Amino acid sequence: MTGIGIIGYGYWGPNLARSVAETESATLTAIADFSPAALARAGKRYPAARLVESWRALLDDPATDAVMIATPVSSHFEIALAALRKGKHVLVEKPITDRSAEARMLVEEAARRRLTLMVDHTFVYTGAVRKIGELIAAGELGDIFYYDSTRVNLGLFQRDVNVIWDLAVHDLSILDFLLAEKPTAVSASGSGHIRGSQENMAHLTLFYPNGTAAHLNVNWLAPVKVRQTLIGGSKKMIVWDDLEPSEKIKVYDRGVSVGDDAGMVERRISYRSGDMWAPQIPVKEALLTEVEHFVDCIERGTTPITSGESGLRVVETLEAAMLSLRQRGNPVEIAELRKAS
Amino acid sequence: MTGIGIIGYGYWGPNLARSVAETESATLTAIADFSPAALARAGKRYPAARLVESWRALLDDPATDAVMIATPVSSHFEIALAALRKGKHVLVEKPITDRSAEARMLVEEAARRRLTLMVDHTFVYTGAVRKIGELIAAGELGDIFYYDSTRVNLGLFQRDVNVIWDLAVHDLSILDFLLAEKPTAVSASGSGHIRGSQENMAHLTLFYPNGTAAHLNVNWLAPVKVRQTLIGGSKKMIVWDDLEPSEKIKVYDRGVSVGDDAGMVERRISYRSGDMWAPQIPVKEALLTEVEHFVDCIERGTTPITSGESGLRVVETLEAAMLSLRQRGNPVEIAELRKAS
Amino acid sequence: MTGIGIIGYGYWGPNLARSVAETESATLTAIADFSPAALARAGKRYPAARLVESWRALLDDPATDAVMIATPVSSHFEIALAALRKGKHVLVEKPITDRSAEARMLVEEAARRRLTLMVDHTFVYTGAVRKIGELIAAGELGDIFYYDSTRVNLGLFQRDVNVIWDLAVHDLSILDFLLAEKPTAVSASGSGHIRGSQENMAHLTLFYPNGTAAHLNVNWLAPVKVRQTLIGGSKKMIVWDDLEPSEKIKVYDRGVSVGDDAGMVERRISYRSGDMWAPQIPVKEALLTEVEHFVDCIERGTTPITSGESGLRVVETLEAAMLSLRQRGNPVEIAELRKAS
Amino acid sequence: MTGIGIIGYGYWGPNLARSVAETESATLTAIADFSPAALARAGKRYPAARLVESWRALLDDPATDAVMIATPVSSHFEIALAALRKGKHVLVEKPITDRSAEARMLVEEAARRRLTLMVDHTFVYTGAVRKIGELIAAGELGDIFYYDSTRVNLGLFQRDVNVIWDLAVHDLSILDFLLAEKPTAVSASGSGHIRGSQENMAHLTLFYPNGTAAHLNVNWLAPVKVRQTLIGGSKKMIVWDDLEPSEKIKVYDRGVSVGDDAGMVERRISYRSGDMWAPQIPVKEALLTEVEHFVDCIERGTTPITSGESGLRVVETLEAAMLSLRQRGNPVEIAELRKAS
Repeated sequence: MTGIGIIGYGYWGPNLARSVAETESATLTAIADFSPAALARAGKRYPAARLVESWRALLDDPATDAVMIATPVSSHFEIALAALRKGKHVLVEKPITDRSAEARMLVEEAARRRLTLMVDHTFVYTGAVRKIGELIAAGELGDIFYYDSTRVNLGLFQRDVNVIWDLAVHDLSILDFLLAEKPTAVSASGSGHIRGSQENMAHLTLFYPNGTAAHLNVNWLAPVKVRQTLIGGSKKMIVWDDLEPSEKIKVYDRGVSVGDDAGMVERRISYRSGDMWAPQIPVKEALLTEVEHFVDCIERGTTPITSGESGLRVVETLEAAMLSLRQRGNPVEIAELRKAS
Repeated sequence: MTGIGIIGYGYWGPNLARSVAETESATLTAIADFSPAALARAGKRYPAARLVESWRALLDDPATDAVMIATPVSSHFEIALAALRKGKHVLVEKPITDRSAEARMLVEEAARRRLTLMVDHTFVYTGAVRKIGELIAAGELGDIFYYDSTRVNLGLFQRDVNVIWDLAVHDLSILDFLLAEKPTAVSASGSGHIRGSQENMAHLTLFYPNGTAAHLNVNWLAPVKVRQTLIGGSKKMIVWDDLEPSEKIKVYDRGVSVGDDAGMVERRISYRSGDMWAPQIPVKEALLTEVEHFVDCIERGTTPITSGESGLRVVETLEAAMLSLRQRGNPVEIAELRKAS
Repeated sequence: MTGIGIIGYGYWGPNLARSVAETESATLTAIADFSPAALARAGKRYPAARLVESWRALLDDPATDAVMIATPVSSHFEIALAALRKGKHVLVEKPITDRSAEARMLVEEAARRRLTLMVDHTFVYTGAVRKIGELIAAGELGDIFYYDSTRVNLGLFQRDVNVIWDLAVHDLSILDFLLAEKPTAVSASGSGHIRGSQENMAHLTLFYPNGTAAHLNVNWLAPVKVRQTLIGGSKKMIVWDDLEPSEKIKVYDRGVSVGDDAGMVERRISYRSGDMWAPQIPVKEALLTEVEHFVDCIERGTTPITSGESGLRVVETLEAAMLSLRQRGNPVEIAELRKAS
Repeated sequence: MTGIGIIGYGYWGPNLARSVAETESATLTAIADFSPAALARAGKRYPAARLVESWRALLDDPATDAVMIATPVSSHFEIALAALRKGKHVLVEKPITDRSAEARMLVEEAARRRLTLMVDHTFVYTGAVRKIGELIAAGELGDIFYYDSTRVNLGLFQRDVNVIWDLAVHDLSILDFLLAEKPTAVSASGSGHIRGSQENMAHLTLFYPNGTAAHLNVNWLAPVKVRQTLIGGSKKMIVWDDLEPSEKIKVYDRGVSVGDDAGMVERRISYRSGDMWAPQIPVKEALLTEVEHFVDCIERGTTPITSGESGLRVVETLEAAMLSLRQRGNPVEIAELRKAS
């Protein structure tokens, strides 16, 4: 039985607490929040949990083997580092930190102490993303030509991060899970249309060594909510519409075949248009799957799917994207940025 | 009564011929195509039209006041220039040419001879685009924050042009019509996934001096057909779905308001979510509207909406996009490209 | 402050309890359920409420001014009658009873004692139905030609009622609210496809004296969930799709106009196809609106929108529909059924 | 090579003529229409066809082996009978006649003379209906529980028939093709909302001996166009949306399973929700398939899929529906109607 404490009981913390409470192999030991009102809400819901205003006090709790950090991004590094140094396993909300150098230090600290460091990239634990992962791993799609995502809606404008750090981070973590290859460069553009606010709209192109192309369209100022991703493969293609209540994933047996004759391109190309298939997707809540995985990794000492390293890669790509955005799309090599940092 | 000849009776030429035949103020005088089979089809349909295999012969026809050119892009310049020099008014299929220098020469030649030079940017004459233009012109949307278009489908791979020259050209011509401002720089990325073929997927970001952002997503290798454009304004926002049979345009009374107090951004921002409205759109065929406009411009000596100049601007942007694409998104200033050419 | 007790804490009771707890002008005084497990759940959530296993005990609670009954339909009559006789105001889940004779007795008992008797026809309190009601009342639609509803999905098969009593009851209560006229006859057909189960599929036609036609399509064995209602009026028409997350109601300025000349019908008829408009709908939870309305009616002594009388009319129509269904659509006059009962 | 003449060159005749012209095994011999303008149009398009104003003259044409009748319904009987008596094979537009007695005479006349009599139930020849037919025939759906169709739109109001004869006829012909069983009784209701016009809205329930239920919802006065049919089977279920451009048919591996234990119904029932699958549907035009089938039946002497007998069954059902509609849903036995006629 793993004892888990929650640090931060604002917007996301209550979801983490509930998931821990519903996980058989875990106990919700303690909750920390500097707001007395938040603590009062937590206490009403979880009378057995210890309540503390200071996250440092929570780290001293001997019944707490692991912590989940759901505080503002800027505080992730300090709290996670302190937790690791106290010997606690750590799950931290996405993004892992707001600087790759800090993420790298967390990864190294966790490795040195052989502690589990995991990032809350929740989408990776949804039935839809896992199903896509299975299809790709089974070779159903063939070579992956591209991943093209539209993730737009009206609001919520964040104070401390722009739309890339808020929304593109989802696709970056999904890509890190789905594709064996990692992006080497990024071109990004973006703009802020609301006075005094950061970028509310951005477009990112990720370049992969094997020619896969990924493109992300994120926007806080769209008239309608869209969560649609097209994934093109040499054999089949996927449309993933996360707003569909039941058929979230549609697999299309469609594509282009190139003949072997020496003729003109348009003569050699033929179009294939076959059946469409929407696999049934398990409905288990992603957060529960994720908390179970966290506990399982702690108990077995295995590496989480959304490890600190994956969190680091995501932050490196976000940094590169921001650098490119400031230069209106000038492509930024992630490896060079890494050397420079 | 304006006599109009058609040069090129392949894929698009028959549509032009039919539209001319249905226009009261025009006469279909002649049709040129080097293929005898195409000419035979044309003759069966339009027994009164003169049929010639050589476009040069058509240009000598005294009954022909104007020509419509629907030949491969690479031949546009030569034919259009010869037509203008023979004193014919010219409508040329999009894009006007495949090089901006050539487009510039056509524009100058037409100006010098006071002839009408028009580009067949058909979308500009659709009810949907005209309605969006009316709404923007009337100030209904407020300041235009962005135009974000997705124009993807499976096929048709073209031999002589890539997906940018085939599909993005539509949005560039629409933007040229809708927005008073013109883009100053472009960042583009793209990739070709089919051996021996050009880019089948591309993303373009256009930068405007006033901060408007335009983004185009074009793809010949998508599992489904999408023709959706979001237009964000400070007052209202539009979703234009060109595949909708009846409600192609939806106007959303939604947005973000910023308060005047000195507080934090997220406190000052409020979200507005009001009615949605889908204006009735006239169903007149775009091509008929366009042909009537062409004849009207010839008769009155007025400048067409999709003038040679607009065709030139579109080609300049396409060239800049290609240059950026070759550099993986490095932004290209259109003015500098112009100087260099 | 009105003290409210909940009888039945199974599927729906917890929703009622939560709504009472969130209503300022009401106090949740007591909860009755014969299941100790249900009571334990209730006690954990509402420590201040009195918990009793017997609903009769709850009726003796002096702090309880009103009760909400969320027990199986077959017990509604007995409990509601006892509650009224104890001087309690009553809100009862839909349908009010499973026999019109019993509903009539409840209505009379409540009238005699000047107590509020209200039926939980929740849909009537949704933003969508209220907005439709406003549009009809304001004459926006003109004369109501028809109401045609499709309410189908997979499951849940009920044990004690068939699909008419489970799903058609929603539309009957909505119609009772929307239309001033009441139906005079019903034709219904239906079938049960699962061995040992009641009808899982049915179609009802309601006849109104003024010519309005209502048709309901209900089905527990459909491959997809549909909640779509078309409402035709002489001026405008509505499509109400309750599964749409934001634009639930679309008002179409469409219809048919009949000319005054004496010609043939098809010459006199012209089609009108104007704008579509989706009014913003308030998002307040229906159940909260309903509980507030219940308390307000108790305090002021006014008649609820979904009064016992409306509940009686709905049950009379359900009975007529069942009688017609057993005769494969033979129309049943509601007034004659009333006399016979 | 079968010589085919067209009688009636108004709305539908030109489609028939074009299909005959495109069919290799047929020759378009002659076209009859009482309107000189229609004949002029026909002559321009088909210079080789004989043009006559009188259909009687066409029947005397020795080069004409078969005729296609696309005249108003009320004239079908007289023309078809005369054609058969002249030894011509006959394809007649739907419905075959407006009276079952007349249809029966045509069927008998054709049988006596061993001529092909076929009805233009075009939908039966579409890729979608044929695919559904294959799935049912292969047992993919299991037992057919129901067929529930919605076929509504705005207009076109017909002068000589009501909405049942105009729209429900499609579903009746599809049902006649799909299901081995034939309906024995009908309950129908309907209403006319436009002064001086016939019923523009109707609902039909068909009763089948084996318990299959069919329901048709047809409406000329709907705000939107809907062409959606749900087909429920014991194994799988289908949603057929004929307005979908590509995935017209979706097959759902969903349903209800009943356990064998003796418990309560709701305990024994379990819901199955598996994959969805949209088979690729051939895009060949229905009318071409139909004309080829007509010629093939003539040449081989085989019975058409949409034979005169199927046309007769459809008209019998239409008559029963009208009789039921006049009695507000009172079910009408088709066999009794047959005896009475």
